Amino acid sequence: MTTPDWRTALLRPDSVALVGVSDDPAKTSGRPLRFLRAAGFAGRVHLVNPGRDTVQGEPAAKSLSDLPEVPDHVFILTDADRALDALEDCVTLGVPVATILASGFSEAGAAGVAHQRRLDAIVAKGDTRVLGPSSIGIANLHAGLTLTANAAFAEPDLPVGGVFVGSHSGSLIGALLSRGARTGLGFAGLASVGGESDLAMGEICSATLDDPDVTGYLLFLETMRHADDLRDFALAAARRGKPVAAYKLGRSEAAAELAVSHTGALAGADEMADMFLDACGIARVDTFEGLLEIAPLLTRVTPRGDARPRRVGVVTTTGGGAAMAVDQVSLRGVDVVPPSRATRARLAEAGVDGGAGRIVDLTLAGTRYDVMSTALDVLRSAREFDCVLVTVGSSARFNPELAVQPAVDAIDTPGHPFAVFLVPDAPDAARRLAAAGIPAFQSPETCADALAAALHRRAPRSPAAPAPPEGGKLRALDEAEGYALLAGAGLPVAPYVALDAGAPVPSLPFDYPVVAKVLDAGIAHKSDAGGVVVGLPDAPSLSAAMQRIGTNVRSALPGLGADRILVQQMCRGLGEVLVGLRRDPDVGPAVVLAAGGIDAELYRDVVIRPAPVGPEEAREMIAALTAARRLDGWRGRPRGDLDALASAIAAMSRLALSTAPVVEEAEINPLLVRAEGEGVVALDAVVRLRDPDQPDTAARELNRQTGDTT
Amino acid sequence: MTTPDWRTALLRPDSVALVGVSDDPAKTSGRPLRFLRAAGFAGRVHLVNPGRDTVQGEPAAKSLSDLPEVPDHVFILTDADRALDALEDCVTLGVPVATILASGFSEAGAAGVAHQRRLDAIVAKGDTRVLGPSSIGIANLHAGLTLTANAAFAEPDLPVGGVFVGSHSGSLIGALLSRGARTGLGFAGLASVGGESDLAMGEICSATLDDPDVTGYLLFLETMRHADDLRDFALAAARRGKPVAAYKLGRSEAAAELAVSHTGALAGADEMADMFLDACGIARVDTFEGLLEIAPLLTRVTPRGDARPRRVGVVTTTGGGAAMAVDQVSLRGVDVVPPSRATRARLAEAGVDGGAGRIVDLTLAGTRYDVMSTALDVLRSAREFDCVLVTVGSSARFNPELAVQPAVDAIDTPGHPFAVFLVPDAPDAARRLAAAGIPAFQSPETCADALAAALHRRAPRSPAAPAPPEGGKLRALDEAEGYALLAGAGLPVAPYVALDAGAPVPSLPFDYPVVAKVLDAGIAHKSDAGGVVVGLPDAPSLSAAMQRIGTNVRSALPGLGADRILVQQMCRGLGEVLVGLRRDPDVGPAVVLAAGGIDAELYRDVVIRPAPVGPEEAREMIAALTAARRLDGWRGRPRGDLDALASAIAAMSRLALSTAPVVEEAEINPLLVRAEGEGVVALDAVVRLRDPDQPDTAARELNRQTGDTT
Repeated sequence: MTTPDWRTALLRPDSVALVGVSDDPAKTSGRPLRFLRAAGFAGRVHLVNPGRDTVQGEPAAKSLSDLPEVPDHVFILTDADRALDALEDCVTLGVPVATILASGFSEAGAAGVAHQRRLDAIVAKGDTRVLGPSSIGIANLHAGLTLTANAAFAEPDLPVGGVFVGSHSGSLIGALLSRGARTGLGFAGLASVGGESDLAMGEICSATLDDPDVTGYLLFLETMRHADDLRDFALAAARRGKPVAAYKLGRSEAAAELAVSHTGALAGADEMADMFLDACGIARVDTFEGLLEIAPLLTRVTPRGDARPRRVGVVTTTGGGAAMAVDQVSLRGVDVVPPSRATRARLAEAGVDGGAGRIVDLTLAGTRYDVMSTALDVLRSAREFDCVLVTVGSSARFNPELAVQPAVDAIDTPGHPFAVFLVPDAPDAARRLAAAGIPAFQSPETCADALAAALHRRAPRSPAAPAPPEGGKLRALDEAEGYALLAGAGLPVAPYVALDAGAPVPSLPFDYPVVAKVLDAGIAHKSDAGGVVVGLPDAPSLSAAMQRIGTNVRSALPGLGADRILVQQMCRGLGEVLVGLRRDPDVGPAVVLAAGGIDAELYRDVVIRPAPVGPEEAREMIAALTAARRLDGWRGRPRGDLDALASAIAAMSRLALSTAPVVEEAEINPLLVRAEGEGVVALDAVVRLRDPDQPDTAARELNRQTGDTT
Repeated sequence: MTTPDWRTALLRPDSVALVGVSDDPAKTSGRPLRFLRAAGFAGRVHLVNPGRDTVQGEPAAKSLSDLPEVPDHVFILTDADRALDALEDCVTLGVPVATILASGFSEAGAAGVAHQRRLDAIVAKGDTRVLGPSSIGIANLHAGLTLTANAAFAEPDLPVGGVFVGSHSGSLIGALLSRGARTGLGFAGLASVGGESDLAMGEICSATLDDPDVTGYLLFLETMRHADDLRDFALAAARRGKPVAAYKLGRSEAAAELAVSHTGALAGADEMADMFLDACGIARVDTFEGLLEIAPLLTRVTPRGDARPRRVGVVTTTGGGAAMAVDQVSLRGVDVVPPSRATRARLAEAGVDGGAGRIVDLTLAGTRYDVMSTALDVLRSAREFDCVLVTVGSSARFNPELAVQPAVDAIDTPGHPFAVFLVPDAPDAARRLAAAGIPAFQSPETCADALAAALHRRAPRSPAAPAPPEGGKLRALDEAEGYALLAGAGLPVAPYVALDAGAPVPSLPFDYPVVAKVLDAGIAHKSDAGGVVVGLPDAPSLSAAMQRIGTNVRSALPGLGADRILVQQMCRGLGEVLVGLRRDPDVGPAVVLAAGGIDAELYRDVVIRPAPVGPEEAREMIAALTAARRLDGWRGRPRGDLDALASAIAAMSRLALSTAPVVEEAEINPLLVRAEGEGVVALDAVVRLRDPDQPDTAARELNRQTGDTT
């Protein structure tokens, strides 16, 4: 026998071994054997338990090395210490994959870190790939492989489907299974990826890409760690036409913090996760049931290639039920549009009375098969819609053959994709729809969530540029150095000079009025230290201001001086924005456009896109920023130079991809936007560079000194 | 026999009549008889059908006047024309209540309006109270009264409970019934209020206030019409300790429009509805299942009397499941706080290991009865929480006796209110909890929605001041008249004078620089017409600006002049807000605080409260306004004079209650907020008065002329 590839061993092993398997089938460590037998796993199952000759009536060996063969996949069910001993055996024997149930590694304090170090060292020694630790196991329902301790697999007759689930949380796999079973939504496989010490979410899902039983993916994410693997997987899945949806914890700051303590990983900022998932072509849902219910919809909605708003047509047997869905869909930025005059005429010609409103309200007449069937046909071929939503009231529960069956019978006929919202509790109708592969939703909120996520999903962009070398000393530039760098990258800067605080004020190369600012890379918050004076009309007032700044800074920040002063021309424009770049440890370099001043923080008015961002995408970013409406002619206001703003965003993107120097962070706030044709101009700048040739500790030291907590 | 009061006849009739009842029990007009018989209604049921001697095997009369008695409650199942004939009979006979199923009234074009006029005329003639039209009926499950055509009542063994439902949508009553049946949540009664031609939502619910079987209310609202009735009901319910929750359509503009076309009523702006429900002590939920699930929670959470943030403690058997709920709860402005040191010590003392994080994560140990029971006891008595959330994973489905039963057994012991979030599909656990009256939630979103709505619910305030006389001529004040009115009400105004455009500039009673503005009540948008020039340093520049304004206005608005100019001192401050008053046709006078300039619109940063608003509530409004964070010392910024702002808001409230004159609308934008102790000052004002002595048509005419669409 040849040793299989780890991908085969992970999900289609010929033989498995359960290390530390319990004789008690109800115990966590007893369940995998019970579940494998119940599922009728056709491969060989070896049991290892040093304390018993038999387990649950089957013979058990004392150790892995006592088995008659090297198993393809070993599930280690012991505590952390003994799990590491068993993993050593796996490496020695050349086992392709080992899954570790135990927790108590990097997330668990000092003792855990010691465990983690030993785990990493063992993995480095051989070719054994590890799923976990803290993995409750993995299942391939098409292969009868229920190699898992998750109690939810005790469920009889779990429906089998085409969706593969990857989850940072083991217990939520159980919630998805039970909720799916209720409405007939089944899975191809489910993996609890645990701590991702070796195999990461992206790699695990990638292992199933060529499996014809797998048609799409649902991810439950607690963090964005190993984002590169996730991106590679998402792009490969897109090439195969297999859609990916994700629910990510951490919309709120409280939950982001929980995700950290829960997994030991650094949770990325939620906005960064949003932009990353969007760029990867992954549909992000906001509701938990939406994650379960979106899969059939994603297989039918083509990812968007343009920024045109998506339009939904609604047909219903119940006005109130449809209104709830319309309300929720509209709140999520999808347009619910009325039928065109032509469509209304076609409905009338076919004898369907749908009223004259935004939705086609069939009222009680809609509970006749022919009426609903005809209405659905007409709407699915109407040019004004991208998708049709069918809302069914009480009849969905009592007579699914009337208003629900037309949807089932329409699924293979050409036309727009459609989805069904079941207003009452109607599990039979839901199962009927699920069996036909029709997207069906149980609440107005999950319906709208999934519709918006599917309709807004974009084709993934090309992969990001290679990451610059990691680590290195951070160096904050002073404002003049920052301007020089930005100007070199093509970003316009308001005219300035750097002056010695002690010398007389020279003749300036630009007109008054000016602003004077203390020039010192060590002072993060110039205004707070009294280091900024605006509106200086002439040289004497500038001279006085420079004196005042010196006094203020020396008093506010003892030990720091104000030897150098940056003098800059005061400029007027129509509005201000923030343009910057950030480098996320998980998801890489990104370009940021935000409301200027403190509005970005006050209103969370921020648009983030991964670099590279070209001028066209920069226009999309501008269109997505609420504050930019002040500059686009809204309500008769003068138009700002949005072309120049788009160019500035693209220039910031080029800077984000530069490797010499590596710009760790740059922020222009404010960037003044002038009237059309008059350009934009930077009025302040914070830039930090990273030098990979210098050790990391220095960088941390600098961070600490400047008190920067961004 | 004496004729009962309409309230008794509505919900506890001794006799009912079904007019137009069909022989086919499956037809809409055949269902009420079938349902009444299935429910075992103990009263007398009379059938009226002019075309048949028997209906569904029971004898039928030709008309209401042929019946042996005057029925207490007549359900008219015919089309609109014949329904009006039957209603005439009801009035003639002195029937206390008639319910009308037919649609085709005020919502249905010209023919409908004719029907509506006839209906109103018939109602005016006698004492018969009407439920509907477009009412699918009413049910009192404690009395076996299923006087309804809603197919959902075909359900056998509907659970009976203490909640009374009032709904503008008949079909959503079915959705609530079926969803409630699944998890064991039952109802006392349900009313489809229909078009509210006579009996309105508030009156109908009020009829049950003294019914001991009714312990609380759920409302499904499509509009805010008859808001006065609703307020009276809500205040009376609060006095009896019977909580009220509402779901209101119209969060989005699209759905608000649907609600209008669906019901023929003017839907109030969503923000006005929010503030009205809040002031009435009605908990507003945003999710449909949240409406169903909130009832048991509301009976246990005392309405808030202060503005302190509410704090929730979380105990869980599953980290991932709890994190979802924490994420959603936090997003809705409720704080999820960790156990205090003392609480952790008590947990440790009791042998419970809950980890060190924000939530008490019992992991698998939590699926032991004693562990969960002890943890719940400790948290329910901890001072740092207002409410405890118990999250239960897979064991809720397979072993509810382990981690769910402790909640059931704790319900009658003293401590904070608590709720349970069931992470898997666990209908048995849900029914077990519902039977014990314990709040239980099936998704993280509905759980968070209901928790936030319940914890933020306030005790209702005293009823609003009596409404001023309706109708009357509207008159827009010019800016100087507006200032005079505002200053008289105690609102500070920046110094100004009104000048003749043609006369020489006099010596001003305040310093330059100044702003010059065209002064004409007919010009709604001064800046757009070139009617404003700012930053004028002296008399000559003011004189030139006055000329320029004249030229601009005459060119932009032919026919209008610029004979008068308002000259105002330019003032500096720390920030700007909008303070105003609005009068909603449904919910009455309200005070508005919003971000200044166009930020209110851009970011929907608006806080609305019904008048009267005192200084303390004004402070709450300021605390709720995002833009006000610029003025409260955030991030080391200087503090604005928020005391003066609160006084200004209270002054605006007094103006809102004035009856001589009646101020229809007032808006100060911007109101400049200066540094602490330096006050606030109005820099612009729009005021419209209403004169009830002048006819309404003139008011509409003025509205049209000024093109004002607010």
